[in-house]
Amino acid sequence: MIMAKVYITLKNGVLDPQGKAVQHSLESLGYKGVSDVRLGKYIELKLTDIHRRDAEERIKEMCERLLANTVIEDYRFEIEV
Amino acid sequence: MIMAKVYITLKNGVLDPQGKAVQHSLESLGYKGVSDVRLGKYIELKLTDIHRRDAEERIKEMCERLLANTVIEDYRFEIEV
Repeated sequence: MIMAKVYITLKNGVLDPQGKAVQHSLESLGYKGVSDVRLGKYIELKLTDIHRRDAEERIKEMCERLLANTVIEDYRFEIEV
Repeated sequence: MIMAKVYITLKNGVLDPQGKAVQHSLESLGYKGVSDVRLGKYIELKLTDIHRRDAEERIKEMCERLLANTVIEDYRFEIEV
């Protein structure tokens, strides 16, 4: 079994209103010095019936086709066997 | 400046309908052998005016008070200076 950890983040320059909301919430809780907050997604996938050597290509394809919106998002992933 | 990467995941045993939806979408795209999908959040925080030695405690507190719902979610974080 292969476990993949996928991190999806907004590209630089794409506004992140949800991150801004979290930043303001932290400020109103009294945390000063929070200069930026960016929110992304973290996805854990478990894959069976696949060889390690094919997993990278497969997961890349999953990210491109479904998991990430590559117009505004970047993705990276780690594979654990 | 300190950069923190916070990972928030659902606790084991907590149902993840969003993860299930992604799993079914992957299956309907033709990806067989996806045995589990869990969705979490990934948060990047930039903190200024704080020493490295205080950052851990501060971020833990932010997670407990705002970023994670500790009844159903776990969190972990990494700090980069």
